[in-house]
Amino acid sequence: MLKIDIHNHILPKEIPDFKSKFGYGGFIRVHPTKDGHADMIRDDGKFFRAIEPNCMDPLVRLEEMDKFNVDVQVLSTVPVMFSEWAKPEHTQQVNRFLNEDIAKSVEVNPKRFVGLGTVPLNNPSLGIEELHFCMNDLGLKGVQLGSHYGKLNLNDKGLFDFYAEAEKLGAALLVHPWDMMGKDTMPDYWLPWLVGMPAETSRAICNMIFGGVFEKFPKLKVCFAHGGGSFPATLGRIRHGYNVRPDLCAVDNDKDPIEYLGKFWIDSITHDPVMLRYIVELLGEDSIMLGTDYPFPLGELEPGKLIESMDDFSADRKQKLLSGNALDWLSMSESDFQ
Amino acid sequence: MLKIDIHNHILPKEIPDFKSKFGYGGFIRVHPTKDGHADMIRDDGKFFRAIEPNCMDPLVRLEEMDKFNVDVQVLSTVPVMFSEWAKPEHTQQVNRFLNEDIAKSVEVNPKRFVGLGTVPLNNPSLGIEELHFCMNDLGLKGVQLGSHYGKLNLNDKGLFDFYAEAEKLGAALLVHPWDMMGKDTMPDYWLPWLVGMPAETSRAICNMIFGGVFEKFPKLKVCFAHGGGSFPATLGRIRHGYNVRPDLCAVDNDKDPIEYLGKFWIDSITHDPVMLRYIVELLGEDSIMLGTDYPFPLGELEPGKLIESMDDFSADRKQKLLSGNALDWLSMSESDFQ
Repeated sequence: MLKIDIHNHILPKEIPDFKSKFGYGGFIRVHPTKDGHADMIRDDGKFFRAIEPNCMDPLVRLEEMDKFNVDVQVLSTVPVMFSEWAKPEHTQQVNRFLNEDIAKSVEVNPKRFVGLGTVPLNNPSLGIEELHFCMNDLGLKGVQLGSHYGKLNLNDKGLFDFYAEAEKLGAALLVHPWDMMGKDTMPDYWLPWLVGMPAETSRAICNMIFGGVFEKFPKLKVCFAHGGGSFPATLGRIRHGYNVRPDLCAVDNDKDPIEYLGKFWIDSITHDPVMLRYIVELLGEDSIMLGTDYPFPLGELEPGKLIESMDDFSADRKQKLLSGNALDWLSMSESDFQ
Repeated sequence: MLKIDIHNHILPKEIPDFKSKFGYGGFIRVHPTKDGHADMIRDDGKFFRAIEPNCMDPLVRLEEMDKFNVDVQVLSTVPVMFSEWAKPEHTQQVNRFLNEDIAKSVEVNPKRFVGLGTVPLNNPSLGIEELHFCMNDLGLKGVQLGSHYGKLNLNDKGLFDFYAEAEKLGAALLVHPWDMMGKDTMPDYWLPWLVGMPAETSRAICNMIFGGVFEKFPKLKVCFAHGGGSFPATLGRIRHGYNVRPDLCAVDNDKDPIEYLGKFWIDSITHDPVMLRYIVELLGEDSIMLGTDYPFPLGELEPGKLIESMDDFSADRKQKLLSGNALDWLSMSESDFQ
């Protein structure tokens, strides 16, 4: 079975000194340590994360992909690189650098890698410009978006031109949680990742549903990370909220949220067979795609194992989850990888 | 079957002018409109919520309880009343007023009402003092807590004396989400309630598990609202985080989070039979208790209906969910209500 991992992250081996270039700091740099390892460090000296060669080197990735029979990785940057807090023209420059780097990684083996770009949605016009550059100049297949951009949520009318353009171009959009709610007051136990990220994803889905984004752009191809975060399991509450307070929830779109199940994708990263089965039943087997969060430890350490281990899933269903749905989302076909 | 609703809210018919009393504002007041209805309005004039007589009048509540065969309500205040942002001595005065009011409501019919107090945990010593007053002077059976108090999370070592005292007194603790993460940047579609609240509850559970609270205080009787929020369905991610980054997650307690399933309670407010079945299977049938969020629309509008409608739940299981588990949590017996 063809195996496509639609959610994993890659970084450039070196990142320019944007602080010196722009005259203010906050940007992440990559500092080599030893044996191809590196530390991601904010330019104010604050340590962010240690990374291994597989986070930067396509050749190392190919070796590890072979080990787990992953045929294709759909590459995207690490969300901390979005730099959505910077001045939009600088965000675009950072994003441009990342996009060109991802395109180079794809070039290493276009039968094994597909690229998603990053766009400066803190200024939607620049976001559209960069989307065009990603799709038309770099040959990327879509872009990764954050779950919000500061106070700009994904229901913002200012983003509708961007959505229209993404729909027209057939761009695959991967919405990844970032700038997690509660991060400043939950310092312990990795809770911004364990609690904040699932909430961010639900925030993004709710804003796009209630904001009428899926209603107005029915061909928009959006996938949400981490099994849709807390959205699927709290849909009862969300829908009940919609039913009892339409004056709050149905102001921009009057349809029941369940109307949109099956109209977007989520990845399979649930770390739990019961929840994987639940989301497949809830959204439908055409809506779930293998994601791994590779090469980070919070991801699926044996890519594809959870889906493959589901004894009650038919071979046909597994094929959809492992690659069939990804081909639809990416507007690609199996022959593109042969 | 005895039916005890452990999660519902009541307010005093009148609230003092704390702004004038303390010399600064931010407190909620109740302004009568007509026919026993009222508006909750912050003392800066900002409208919070319209309420009906059933939110303030125990006699109206008894009528509605009879309609749905609810035998007992375990009363608690509305979280916006916590006033945890005020100076702790003032928080305590507000809480004291609320606690005495709840005790009066219980007196209306002690066979139909049980009371939970509110404590100023923004100063744990005052919190202990008020806990004693609630339990010993007012005859309340426990207290409602917020999911955090500003930057103080429920794993804070400063709260351990409070937990020790609550354990000693056998106090029932109901942890209710409040001061929702993301509230300032998610203005639309009621998302602080639909997304922020489930995340707050997961934050509270994670902090208490990873902080070693259940480990150090094994007899502490804690219930979390809204079916445990997003915790149960994201436990796969949480546990995976614990497994791969013990340096972040297991710093205060090295046990797997699943060790604590069955050692706390959650209420049944899921609005979804599939999720209700899931939490019963996950935590065990001794850990789920009927809650309704009455009299608010986001609650279960027909108290008990979801549990009663579960065809695959045995009569014994339903009895546990509808009242048996609540009796254990409250350290009470059926005869207390006859």
